Amino acid sequence: MHRVVLVRHGESIWNQENRFTGWTDVDLTEKGVHEAFKAGQLLKDFPYEVDIAFTSVLKRAIKTMNYILDQDDLLWIPIYKSWKLNERHYGALQGLNKQETAAKYGEEQVRLWRRSFDVPPLKITVDDDRYPQRDKRYKELTEPEIPLGESLKDTIARVVPYWESEIVPHIKAGKNVLVVAHGNSLRALMKVLENISDEDIIDLNIPTAVPILYELDDQLRPLNRHFLGDQERVQEKINVVANPGKIME
Amino acid sequence: MHRVVLVRHGESIWNQENRFTGWTDVDLTEKGVHEAFKAGQLLKDFPYEVDIAFTSVLKRAIKTMNYILDQDDLLWIPIYKSWKLNERHYGALQGLNKQETAAKYGEEQVRLWRRSFDVPPLKITVDDDRYPQRDKRYKELTEPEIPLGESLKDTIARVVPYWESEIVPHIKAGKNVLVVAHGNSLRALMKVLENISDEDIIDLNIPTAVPILYELDDQLRPLNRHFLGDQERVQEKINVVANPGKIME
Repeated sequence: MHRVVLVRHGESIWNQENRFTGWTDVDLTEKGVHEAFKAGQLLKDFPYEVDIAFTSVLKRAIKTMNYILDQDDLLWIPIYKSWKLNERHYGALQGLNKQETAAKYGEEQVRLWRRSFDVPPLKITVDDDRYPQRDKRYKELTEPEIPLGESLKDTIARVVPYWESEIVPHIKAGKNVLVVAHGNSLRALMKVLENISDEDIIDLNIPTAVPILYELDDQLRPLNRHFLGDQERVQEKINVVANPGKIME
Repeated sequence: MHRVVLVRHGESIWNQENRFTGWTDVDLTEKGVHEAFKAGQLLKDFPYEVDIAFTSVLKRAIKTMNYILDQDDLLWIPIYKSWKLNERHYGALQGLNKQETAAKYGEEQVRLWRRSFDVPPLKITVDDDRYPQRDKRYKELTEPEIPLGESLKDTIARVVPYWESEIVPHIKAGKNVLVVAHGNSLRALMKVLENISDEDIIDLNIPTAVPILYELDDQLRPLNRHFLGDQERVQEKINVVANPGKIME
């Protein structure tokens, strides 16, 4: 039996401020740190250990991972970071809060950007301060790789090849894998694991900092999936993310 | 010009308790955490950034590194962890404090173990709880690699090949490298970099959590070396480490 654990990062400052975050590298709030500790404790109670961890190049995910590994006395395991596990790039919406986006583009347009599978947000241009290559960590991306604003479909298109080439071989080699990432990069992974349709993936709401444990067969088909922890608390967290007034991505 | 920064981890719980630590995986004290933050701030003021980091598989070094990278907004860079950068394995002395070791083995014997180049401490046996392979992180070590108690010479013999095969290629490729490690694994690196003799390396006292910046020529010979920060404070830290009554390794 193979095992993989997915965890969405804890609350970030911009989650709290209800701003579109995307690739902006904002820190965890105190609540987010506490959520990460809690996730670590939940995983620690589990009767097996993680062998290797993957995360994005954004600190809210990296720190969530580090807090989890520290709680589980696993800081020593190998960890890999890639921009391919980053949150969906939210283009020109990055940095705007709920009210600002509604005032600027209209509620309906914003709803469409947030809730469609293949409609990208308004894109940024090369001269925009938010252009990824102004940031050293994205210097090695090739021109076609640099996102200016991604749809969920675009996000999935870069997450899945990374999953297949970099993560799956470790799972097949018998390693218990931890992936700490973001709402939309984790949607990509759950879509693949559970064979979820393009229509249904939009409605999948992933709670923050809840370890999602998959046990998989030899073909990496899920035998079962557990959201670890108190199930009422998990449902509350799903409700927060599902609330259309709350921007968490 | 090539650059490498060495940092010894901040104060650990067993440093504070004056116990031989070696490969025991003890945590930082609050003071140690503060020292790590401070080291990160010193590095942040420097006019270039680290590109890649190396550390041991012991949490006092890993956490020191994470605090530094967080301060410098560099959590996203690649990091590599290896047991080859671990502290000297202190054999049967691990866990004993200054008084216990003196009572058990005599002051003079302990001084000899601590202050000679090639005399290993009393070794542990395979049935000892401290035998490395009881710990999952050392499962892949081959029989001859598993230390039962190392001299400084033994420590150098495993650090230097790792330096040459895993770290030097990145330096030569133009990367600014950070190594966060331990008193004796860093002695090994400073011995190589500065071509220090077997006799003199014993007397080299490396301050905790002070970034040591080397600028190197194409042959990786040092052009200069800076201990970053207030020089009086650096000297105070060296004096603490040099105090024969204080066990910091």
